[in-house]
Amino acid sequence: MTKRLCAPVAPGGTIGILGGGQLGRMLALAAARLGLKVHIYCDEDDAPAFEVASARTLASYNDDAALARFADLCDAVTFEFENIPAVTASFVAGRAPLNPCVRSLVLTQDRLEEKKFIASLGVKTSAFLEVSSVEDVRAAFARLGGPAVLKTRRHGYDGKGQAKVSSADEVVCAFEDSQRAPSVLEAFVDFSFEASIIAVRSTDGAFAAYDPPENAHENHILRRSTVPARLSAAQVEDAKSIARRIAEALGYVGVLTVELFVTRDGALLVNEIAPRVHNSGHWTIEACMVSQFEQHIRAIAGWPLGSTERHSDAVMENILGGEAADWERLSQTGALHLYGKKEMRPGRKMGHLTRLLPRTEA
Amino acid sequence: MTKRLCAPVAPGGTIGILGGGQLGRMLALAAARLGLKVHIYCDEDDAPAFEVASARTLASYNDDAALARFADLCDAVTFEFENIPAVTASFVAGRAPLNPCVRSLVLTQDRLEEKKFIASLGVKTSAFLEVSSVEDVRAAFARLGGPAVLKTRRHGYDGKGQAKVSSADEVVCAFEDSQRAPSVLEAFVDFSFEASIIAVRSTDGAFAAYDPPENAHENHILRRSTVPARLSAAQVEDAKSIARRIAEALGYVGVLTVELFVTRDGALLVNEIAPRVHNSGHWTIEACMVSQFEQHIRAIAGWPLGSTERHSDAVMENILGGEAADWERLSQTGALHLYGKKEMRPGRKMGHLTRLLPRTEA
Repeated sequence: MTKRLCAPVAPGGTIGILGGGQLGRMLALAAARLGLKVHIYCDEDDAPAFEVASARTLASYNDDAALARFADLCDAVTFEFENIPAVTASFVAGRAPLNPCVRSLVLTQDRLEEKKFIASLGVKTSAFLEVSSVEDVRAAFARLGGPAVLKTRRHGYDGKGQAKVSSADEVVCAFEDSQRAPSVLEAFVDFSFEASIIAVRSTDGAFAAYDPPENAHENHILRRSTVPARLSAAQVEDAKSIARRIAEALGYVGVLTVELFVTRDGALLVNEIAPRVHNSGHWTIEACMVSQFEQHIRAIAGWPLGSTERHSDAVMENILGGEAADWERLSQTGALHLYGKKEMRPGRKMGHLTRLLPRTEA
Repeated sequence: MTKRLCAPVAPGGTIGILGGGQLGRMLALAAARLGLKVHIYCDEDDAPAFEVASARTLASYNDDAALARFADLCDAVTFEFENIPAVTASFVAGRAPLNPCVRSLVLTQDRLEEKKFIASLGVKTSAFLEVSSVEDVRAAFARLGGPAVLKTRRHGYDGKGQAKVSSADEVVCAFEDSQRAPSVLEAFVDFSFEASIIAVRSTDGAFAAYDPPENAHENHILRRSTVPARLSAAQVEDAKSIARRIAEALGYVGVLTVELFVTRDGALLVNEIAPRVHNSGHWTIEACMVSQFEQHIRAIAGWPLGSTERHSDAVMENILGGEAADWERLSQTGALHLYGKKEMRPGRKMGHLTRLLPRTEA
């Protein structure tokens, strides 16, 4: 019995979230503010989001009975990371209104399909070629030239499944290291900086986007997001229009993030898209009246979108691994967010810190 | 076995909250942001705070076994409303670090003791007299003159247990209506407006206060808080100093609210004090980097206080009773907070809405 989202989920209704990480936790906190209940479904028992949810299901993502019970208890369902199995999302979508749509999830789980889709919209990306064999890899490297980046098509995040290569031997080695996983070879973009656009689209097609932050990475992990980015008003409009084209082509509902390379000559190239709220949008909690988390909940619950305007400029820094041990000092330097994770593994996202500054014009 | 708060409660630790209303809910959300777990103890099964807590105890406030289990699972405990039985608080304080101290709770549960205490600090209040019999009531009214306000010593909030009276007959009637409950007769203050000061004191004696909001009531219920209030810098300093004297005299730890009458000649009279976060401080969620809820959690967990500075001006309006049915429109006009209450009873606090404005100087 499929429930359809014919009317907004009223306060008191239940939002289901597949996945229980920090994004699920912050989504749950945003939903609670709106008077909505949250049911978290996750396969790990110490999931950060469990602690703030009104209902919890601890079960595997292929447990159809548990998924059915969960879906039947929810008025609208979403997911908090893009590595939820597509079959899980499809199963749930058959029983409860699920957004973003399964197609967005499937597309962003495969770098090749994602890039082809973006290119099909006339949006620029780095040059890329599909590679499935050592011969492909050699041929692709010969065509693109070095340096280049070999990325597995599936299961990549925070730099996992990626290798920067400068020679034909290196690219073959990297391909062997990945167990010859189906991959994409991309021309390396010598960008000036990275930015991202966090956008949201509602069930009735309304679209809004935050001003894009500028993002600094270290070891492939986001270190810092700063808003406003060093972008002209025209570039900001361009970035928003890219996100809008992607969202509309997908019939997307929810928050969508587009990661961008800003080249030395000012062009915007799409690096990748994430069908969810994003680490580079955490500053919206303090700098905007409606955060990316609340926007996502509003969108998937069929509510009107909120304003994406920022009242302040902001700098958000991630707190990684052992840095979290310094929480007492950090708590005196800005708005501190800790995700309730026990183990401080190197590079693990333990929390973040946002500082606000008086608003400058973008 | 009493646990003492010798070191701050580290992230991952558990904060216990006695009471499960909207203040407990917003305290729980603030604690979650800091990576702390929350255990809510409440005697009503549809308590708003249960929905966002990692642990819940549904039991009566005089169930010693349940209270002992609860206290033993918490690293620090607080309460979210001042009508928690003092004996409950004392029992818990014997097993876990409880703040604010039981003395603050006891004092604010009795209007007479509260007023005597405030007056003993040399802080101005309206004139008041203790009344326990019809004879007292007549004598007190003769001394204070009309109009006056008869208030029961105990169990008053949102105007409950209060009656404004203009004649000797009226005051006797009101006293009879209250079943001759021990009361205080106060001279009516023909104030210019009401304000409040939300202050916080930490375990090491650090003190901070937000700029005072100006508060408008309707039918004795807070309708709107606006910051900044129409107060001079000297009046603001005065208000902060009043809160500081009260907090220091009590050895207070946590957020303390002082409600003030601002008279037509600019004097500040204390109306009452609340040993907790306060409805008139909800605007701090959006307008400050650290809200009153987070400050309270920081203080009772032994953390350093955060900044009380506001980056924006703000107007907070309560959403009362049936007004909550208009949530869809309200969600487009500001930062909407709904408390997850099912029944929209007249005058019931269902949520609130905050709008920010660019900061003016106080």
